Amino acid sequence: MKLCSFTKDGTSSYGLVNEAGIVDLGKRFDAPTLRDFLATGDMAAAAALVSAEADYGFDDVTHEPVIPNPDKIICVGLNYHAHIEETGREETPNPVLFARYQGSQIGHNAPLIKPLESDKFDYEGEVAVIIGKEGRRISEADAMGYVAGYACYNDGSVRDWQKHTHQFMPGKTFAGTGGFGPWMVTADEIEDHTKMRLQTRLNGETVQDTTLDMLVCSIPRLIAYCSTILPLLPGDVIVSGTPGGVGARRTPPLFMKDGDLCEVEVSGVGILSNPVKAEV
Amino acid sequence: MKLCSFTKDGTSSYGLVNEAGIVDLGKRFDAPTLRDFLATGDMAAAAALVSAEADYGFDDVTHEPVIPNPDKIICVGLNYHAHIEETGREETPNPVLFARYQGSQIGHNAPLIKPLESDKFDYEGEVAVIIGKEGRRISEADAMGYVAGYACYNDGSVRDWQKHTHQFMPGKTFAGTGGFGPWMVTADEIEDHTKMRLQTRLNGETVQDTTLDMLVCSIPRLIAYCSTILPLLPGDVIVSGTPGGVGARRTPPLFMKDGDLCEVEVSGVGILSNPVKAEV
Repeated sequence: MKLCSFTKDGTSSYGLVNEAGIVDLGKRFDAPTLRDFLATGDMAAAAALVSAEADYGFDDVTHEPVIPNPDKIICVGLNYHAHIEETGREETPNPVLFARYQGSQIGHNAPLIKPLESDKFDYEGEVAVIIGKEGRRISEADAMGYVAGYACYNDGSVRDWQKHTHQFMPGKTFAGTGGFGPWMVTADEIEDHTKMRLQTRLNGETVQDTTLDMLVCSIPRLIAYCSTILPLLPGDVIVSGTPGGVGARRTPPLFMKDGDLCEVEVSGVGILSNPVKAEV
Repeated sequence: MKLCSFTKDGTSSYGLVNEAGIVDLGKRFDAPTLRDFLATGDMAAAAALVSAEADYGFDDVTHEPVIPNPDKIICVGLNYHAHIEETGREETPNPVLFARYQGSQIGHNAPLIKPLESDKFDYEGEVAVIIGKEGRRISEADAMGYVAGYACYNDGSVRDWQKHTHQFMPGKTFAGTGGFGPWMVTADEIEDHTKMRLQTRLNGETVQDTTLDMLVCSIPRLIAYCSTILPLLPGDVIVSGTPGGVGARRTPPLFMKDGDLCEVEVSGVGILSNPVKAEV
């Protein structure tokens, strides 16, 4: 099942995506947002509508970030060997975590914003893991039971601001830099998440390409580690890391500029597509 | 004017603190939380109640973090010369920023939680700056006009988790480690914020003592820098950094343990007091 968040005629809602378009769940259930709907745990109620008549065509809404209002967006850095190698850093036994604020996120088809302050705006294709139920100190063995689903994420990075100091966060949370969409695919549809293939394309050219079995810290390990720190909640997003091939580490560097199109594809999930727009 | 958030008989609210106790603003205004009330900008409506009869004694409620639900908690590291020196790090021209999640916060008198996973639980007394109105790319000259007020903050730090990797966040957002209270004092009551004195006491002994003119990046500079990244919103919290004297850099180290009492005092604001409780 595919679930998305959107705005239609000025009203925010969420829905189920089927072949005909979007079935508006926001007007059928009490939960005001997809995050709240995940917290009800009643996925069966949505699944019963999977063949319902669509309320809107998929392209007739404004797509919002899959979860526009997560309690936590936990980003993982340096979590693929090939990316660690290209940065010249060393592998750490524990995951490298930093935050992104929700106001930096955008939905499918919305522009990724290259800020005025930088010409070093870089793509980072990633798989977003969306949490489905609350848990603290979740064991690795139990972790996959806490996953509601997966989505494509573009952790757009303002490299010079990321390197102003040793802490990455400033370059990782500029307004309009976190692409999250086009929908989440529920975990029941992904037979083996480690076989998911993640690709990033800039103007049609593949610039990142990996499978999830190449993660340094696996999804269960990330869930166990993060939930040791504080409770994970329904709708929390773990952005699991980017593979090799980022623009900043190419020769010559390849940064995103006005008019570019950046796509993140995850097999079994879909394609997140965002044009790039430079602020003026 | 002093504003606080609290729970009384299972209901969350916010209020004005006067000599008699707390005037419950949540039951007098439509805004459901203090964050929402700040967004209305109608401080005069609250100020008109400053001499009103108190609804509750100050000690007859459960104190919540001053802003329990900020859109952003932006923490500043290494922002006092004496603290930079004791860590052996170098001063950076730009602020060192990382995040804390709202679920890690506690209110006045609530226990600071030393997690099971660590015996290196450290205090960090700080001044929290609470934003009063939305703004992006705020100039340093205009910045102080965006400050709603100030509060005491204890950025409780799990030092070994902070140093698992080069990114601080894991050690800075454990559940029950962010003390924030007892109230905020509105900016109009602080004539010169650079003269505020910040002190931390552990079991009555002063362990940190500074004035805000010792900040490396001033409050206006922090507001300008953070708001360049993405819009600041009413209720956002900038935790402005801790001075020298942290427990981890003492010989021998001085960590917080079960039964300790940690206080953070900011002159003109008040005293945040939290007992320390070890998880078992």
